[in-house]
Amino acid sequence: MILHDYLPSGNGYKIRLLLNLLGIDYQVKCYDIVAGETRTPRFLALNPNGKIPVLEFDDGRTLAESNAVLYYLAQGTRFWPSDTWLQAEVLKWMNFEQYSHEPNIASPRFWLSHAGMNELRQAQLADKQQQGYAALELMEQHLKQHQYLVAEQLSIADIALYAYTHVADEGGFELSRFPAIQDWCQRIAKQPNYIAIDDDTKVCA
Amino acid sequence: MILHDYLPSGNGYKIRLLLNLLGIDYQVKCYDIVAGETRTPRFLALNPNGKIPVLEFDDGRTLAESNAVLYYLAQGTRFWPSDTWLQAEVLKWMNFEQYSHEPNIASPRFWLSHAGMNELRQAQLADKQQQGYAALELMEQHLKQHQYLVAEQLSIADIALYAYTHVADEGGFELSRFPAIQDWCQRIAKQPNYIAIDDDTKVCA
Repeated sequence: MILHDYLPSGNGYKIRLLLNLLGIDYQVKCYDIVAGETRTPRFLALNPNGKIPVLEFDDGRTLAESNAVLYYLAQGTRFWPSDTWLQAEVLKWMNFEQYSHEPNIASPRFWLSHAGMNELRQAQLADKQQQGYAALELMEQHLKQHQYLVAEQLSIADIALYAYTHVADEGGFELSRFPAIQDWCQRIAKQPNYIAIDDDTKVCA
Repeated sequence: MILHDYLPSGNGYKIRLLLNLLGIDYQVKCYDIVAGETRTPRFLALNPNGKIPVLEFDDGRTLAESNAVLYYLAQGTRFWPSDTWLQAEVLKWMNFEQYSHEPNIASPRFWLSHAGMNELRQAQLADKQQQGYAALELMEQHLKQHQYLVAEQLSIADIALYAYTHVADEGGFELSRFPAIQDWCQRIAKQPNYIAIDDDTKVCA
């Protein structure tokens, strides 16, 4: 299968990390999202929303939205609990990630480390940093008492939240304030077949 | 069960609508989110993220994040498909809703119709309106060819997206530009046991 992606993307990395933990082979096709390469007719045929990541299966089917892809890949594996209540808890964290965490933690990183600042971004930065710290603090309080986010087992909730959390310093967040998050990141980084966000060994031409 | 909610909230309404379509009884406890009533110690014990809606079950368990609640309530019902691929498609639309749709469509509505504008909100408004229209256009193109978002059947993907779409005019969006969306809204509003977003018959003291 082919992952249409942008290597610095945490949303793409979630999928790359899970594919590796599952031992599933894939190739990565890279797009320069800053240069508009996800707005071409060819890309919009893969995802009308014009966003990476998109997972393209060998039979031609495509799936967008990183957390939906995690859900699909995790079915029947140890990364998705069998109990319905625990499944809902996993999705609770994954929705927290997309709504309260990623927009506040990934955007400052994208602006400061990749795309550059402009007036509108500057106007939003302080508010996003405040909300981003609140999201990290919520994770910290939970991880002070738990090894992983749900049921003391690594799940796609952890993978979804790890992606942008572990590189939050690139957006100006001081992770040293959050020792429980740092320990949790270490536990994930020690998983067999773990790969780093900038690992480019699967990138194809 | 008790839904901790704020009646104008589309995120809360998703859950109220599904509970009604399923014929499940509940009560609504209202909070003034503008006045900070979701930031009290008592509310933070229900949801450390300080956001409505939160569904509190009769046994005391609580679940936050509207889309996770929809998932939990829909298990084993006609609103959640049994096929894994279709499930992933439902979650794709629900993640689109939380990331690309709700922040751009619900926020202008909240600012313009409920909370009021300030300098930071004014700076973001044009960008949010542009992205909100893009999200509506994506839905329009899909609904031109489909009765519902996934598998031609009403699912929690439709319920999630209906909530803020059908009141998008309150955020300054002209829904008359989107005839397929309007037809889809009509189909949903005709469902047996449908309730309006401002229905207050379940509100308790």
